Amino acid sequence: MRKRKTLVDVAAAAGVSKMTASRALRGDKDVSKASIERVRAAAREIGYYGNHLAASLSSSRAELIGVVVPALANVVFPEVMSGVSDALRGTGFQPVFGVTEYDTEKEYEIIRSMLSWRPAGLIITGLEQTEATRKLLSGADIPIVQTMDCDGEPLDACVGFSHSKAGYDIAKALLATGRRRIGYAGCNLDKDTRAAKRRQGFLRALADSGVPLAGEVTASGLSSIQSGRKLAEEILKRYPDLDCIYFSNDDLAAGGICYCLETGMAVPEQIALAGFNGLDIIEGFPGRIATSKTARHAIGQAAAGIILEAVKGNGSTGGQRIILEPTISLGALQKA
Amino acid sequence: MRKRKTLVDVAAAAGVSKMTASRALRGDKDVSKASIERVRAAAREIGYYGNHLAASLSSSRAELIGVVVPALANVVFPEVMSGVSDALRGTGFQPVFGVTEYDTEKEYEIIRSMLSWRPAGLIITGLEQTEATRKLLSGADIPIVQTMDCDGEPLDACVGFSHSKAGYDIAKALLATGRRRIGYAGCNLDKDTRAAKRRQGFLRALADSGVPLAGEVTASGLSSIQSGRKLAEEILKRYPDLDCIYFSNDDLAAGGICYCLETGMAVPEQIALAGFNGLDIIEGFPGRIATSKTARHAIGQAAAGIILEAVKGNGSTGGQRIILEPTISLGALQKA
Repeated sequence: MRKRKTLVDVAAAAGVSKMTASRALRGDKDVSKASIERVRAAAREIGYYGNHLAASLSSSRAELIGVVVPALANVVFPEVMSGVSDALRGTGFQPVFGVTEYDTEKEYEIIRSMLSWRPAGLIITGLEQTEATRKLLSGADIPIVQTMDCDGEPLDACVGFSHSKAGYDIAKALLATGRRRIGYAGCNLDKDTRAAKRRQGFLRALADSGVPLAGEVTASGLSSIQSGRKLAEEILKRYPDLDCIYFSNDDLAAGGICYCLETGMAVPEQIALAGFNGLDIIEGFPGRIATSKTARHAIGQAAAGIILEAVKGNGSTGGQRIILEPTISLGALQKA
Repeated sequence: MRKRKTLVDVAAAAGVSKMTASRALRGDKDVSKASIERVRAAAREIGYYGNHLAASLSSSRAELIGVVVPALANVVFPEVMSGVSDALRGTGFQPVFGVTEYDTEKEYEIIRSMLSWRPAGLIITGLEQTEATRKLLSGADIPIVQTMDCDGEPLDACVGFSHSKAGYDIAKALLATGRRRIGYAGCNLDKDTRAAKRRQGFLRALADSGVPLAGEVTASGLSSIQSGRKLAEEILKRYPDLDCIYFSNDDLAAGGICYCLETGMAVPEQIALAGFNGLDIIEGFPGRIATSKTARHAIGQAAAGIILEAVKGNGSTGGQRIILEPTISLGALQKA
């Protein structure tokens, strides 16, 4: 059986008292820099790692921050998590993650389980939680940040942008390039409420401009490049005269461009494609696909920043709202 | 200030005693099914979420499982995390994640910080930890699973496959299709030790077959579709007569095919491309890119399974080794 190293082992290795070792590890000002360095080197040498849990008990609060995301299937939410992780580095707080797969019942279970750990704060995705989940959250006396959306009434703080506006804006941008026979191809709209909001905004912009939607195909199930291929094939077979397709996200749009390139359709000359997120995969086809680039890493970072501020202050987020709007990239379409 | 709901509130709402409420929430056999359901409905109704931390104190161990991954920039490690998350669902254990960005010093800091939380177990990536990190880990009396690799000596349990063999096998498969002017394009080989092992295996297979490497370009920095484009451009300008390029992973290979498609090179007829991982993005170009499909979700699931077994048993993993080899997909190259 391996034996865990204790503070006594560190003190012995550094040739100081247990008290000095303890103070040195805390970075106490009364300990000389040389001693701090010697004690830390000794701790590293023998593989000592302290006991945060014991320390957290006295405050009855673990230094954990719950992060709830809907999916890990493309880089969007991992990048939000990466932003959270970067903001927390060196602060003593650690993220604990949960994945809902866009299922509100799973989201309830994950949040309930997380709250039972007394996290220092919670970062969750979107504004559409069930009544039961909202009750859980409003009973939790910790800072909560809802991310990636601001279309609605946040429970506490929020960091995101309006998906409805994002859909509206890209429709206007596509219309401005002269496209008029515009189709929509989407996935998972029953569960992905943010994608559904983008679609609504998109349709509203078309209506405002007096341009009818020229065709639409949707599928259930999570989006992927493969489902984008299928949707592109389906919509182009049903509506062969489209000059533009707006996909509910970049995974689908990437599948769309693969289909178009392989069937010899010129993108964007013959058909314009647009997605959403500004994924790296889109940049693999430079300028061929229009998209709205979302600030995923910055959103994660800002959300974690609000929690840190709150826990270091009076525990309240002050109901902060941070809006980080996506930027539209039209690429080659701009000139076409 | 919001007030946290207590067990007393649950008992009052369900019309039972505090003791019965407590037993019902634990699923005690002495409480009737009807009472259990009434108490759980009441807990849900008022937004009660219990106090796991207090429960875990008595055992002086938090029900957290640390998961350390090198990157979140493509779906490879998020999918491993997703496998871990699926295996832990409903068990009461939760994953805590840390991202090293392929930096061994960050890895040391993350693992030290995680160990200070007394996790129930640790899932880390790869076998190449520094001496200081290995000391930390060998001093921790918890089950540890190293994932994604088995070329070397694990500290405790491991779930993965041989990258050296994976590189060897795809080289043999490419040679069997008749390719002889084969180049290599790689990224981040100084830090990504598993990519470096694949390259070594690849070169060994070429040497065994008496085929010299016809060209090589490498770059530092994390791999991406954009860097794949650049590497493809560079290697094809320097070695225009290549009939095959092996990229260190699928992100790079996807950049490669974007470059080839846009410059009018027929893939795989004129030039065969191969990557590694079997990402969804590769399947966007059906059969155009050869790859080795890795069992990322299954690896995460198996790693979490080993930890769960150990903590429910005598705390030891028994030094289990689980090998989940990738499967080679040659796609259109098979017939070419």
